Amino acid sequence: MLEKNKKAVVLLSGGLDSATTLAIARTEGFQCYALTFRYGQRHQREIEAAKKIAHSLAVAEHRIIDIDLAQFGGSALTDPNIKVPKDRAELGNSARIPATYVPARNTIFLSYALAWAEVLGAFDIFIGVNQTDYSGYPDSRAEFISAFEKTANLATAAAVEGKGRYRIHTPVINMTKGEIILTGTKFSVDFSLTHSCYDPDEQGRSCGRCDSCRLRLKGFAEAGLKDPVEYAK
Amino acid sequence: MLEKNKKAVVLLSGGLDSATTLAIARTEGFQCYALTFRYGQRHQREIEAAKKIAHSLAVAEHRIIDIDLAQFGGSALTDPNIKVPKDRAELGNSARIPATYVPARNTIFLSYALAWAEVLGAFDIFIGVNQTDYSGYPDSRAEFISAFEKTANLATAAAVEGKGRYRIHTPVINMTKGEIILTGTKFSVDFSLTHSCYDPDEQGRSCGRCDSCRLRLKGFAEAGLKDPVEYAK
Repeated sequence: MLEKNKKAVVLLSGGLDSATTLAIARTEGFQCYALTFRYGQRHQREIEAAKKIAHSLAVAEHRIIDIDLAQFGGSALTDPNIKVPKDRAELGNSARIPATYVPARNTIFLSYALAWAEVLGAFDIFIGVNQTDYSGYPDSRAEFISAFEKTANLATAAAVEGKGRYRIHTPVINMTKGEIILTGTKFSVDFSLTHSCYDPDEQGRSCGRCDSCRLRLKGFAEAGLKDPVEYAK
Repeated sequence: MLEKNKKAVVLLSGGLDSATTLAIARTEGFQCYALTFRYGQRHQREIEAAKKIAHSLAVAEHRIIDIDLAQFGGSALTDPNIKVPKDRAELGNSARIPATYVPARNTIFLSYALAWAEVLGAFDIFIGVNQTDYSGYPDSRAEFISAFEKTANLATAAAVEGKGRYRIHTPVINMTKGEIILTGTKFSVDFSLTHSCYDPDEQGRSCGRCDSCRLRLKGFAEAGLKDPVEYAK
């Protein structure tokens, strides 16, 4: 189904999943408005990655919003006193929620996407959450997305006045990392522009050992492709 | 029921409803963490009001967060090109959503409150929404609050790990403005510190003609009290 010239807001982090999600939205015919957050992550490399991906996939507009989640802390991604876990024995099927969980992050991201969508007159929001290679984030699960979608349709003037119904699209939610990479490749994602590592070195090279690097490397192996980004030795 | 030393996050705007909500949370025994947003409102007077109220009601902490909703526009409160409506014939029972509606505002505010609550280990969030003197904001209705509460309990590690259940408290949701003022007065709110006007003059005096001023004046009349704030002649 081709959604000719319909606008969509696409959350874009700079990683594999959101890059492939953007490529899918574009392939479905949406005019894409990409939204990236500078939220006090330790490293700014993923913002640069998001800019390059947005440009290479010809979005209608790319906004980068500063939000200070670091002031709340509570995550290894925003608080330098909490260590990024490395070489975890269990990967993707642990019952524990990892230290890289950022409190209420996707709720905040989707709320901003909703605000922008309402002003744009868009009713479609794309987010690259994934629950297959599930690393324990509660706000990446389908039941959370569905609850947020319901909230969005009660929260906004556009929905309440009957101008449309908001839909939160999660096209990669049930794909494996390998499938995401194969799909992205088919839809022209240049994965050399993406960034996944939670803890890159000063030269910006990926560590290869955090959960995010390990899932990424597993994905490229599954896809039978070589990861084009550089890793620290 | 006295909630001794339990922490709560309380959204505080500087207006009547949130001031009374904070006073109620405090009377119920909660240790209150007040949260105010500088979101690109045209005037900063309500931030100053929030600071004074937080101080006078002895909160444990008061955070003021900058979020740039003005960059999205779409509201008379954040976009100088959209006029604040004055002297509307219908007040409080219009089917139309007024120009002062800010897209997804309460969804964004509650998302931040949730993030802070999770880091604090709090499960109680207070918001001073009101649907009696309903001026048409969809995100002030009980069904929106209930949908957000469900979302919160799916979004967060603390809820998913069973540490507690988030509750969004809306103690003034069904009160009239007069009842809110009487309740606030009983629980030590100094209403001379509060600010309601959407469009104050340069001396900070309220206009007396916007929806917010008119609801406030109607409330004081109902309560049989004199509004202590200054109005432009």
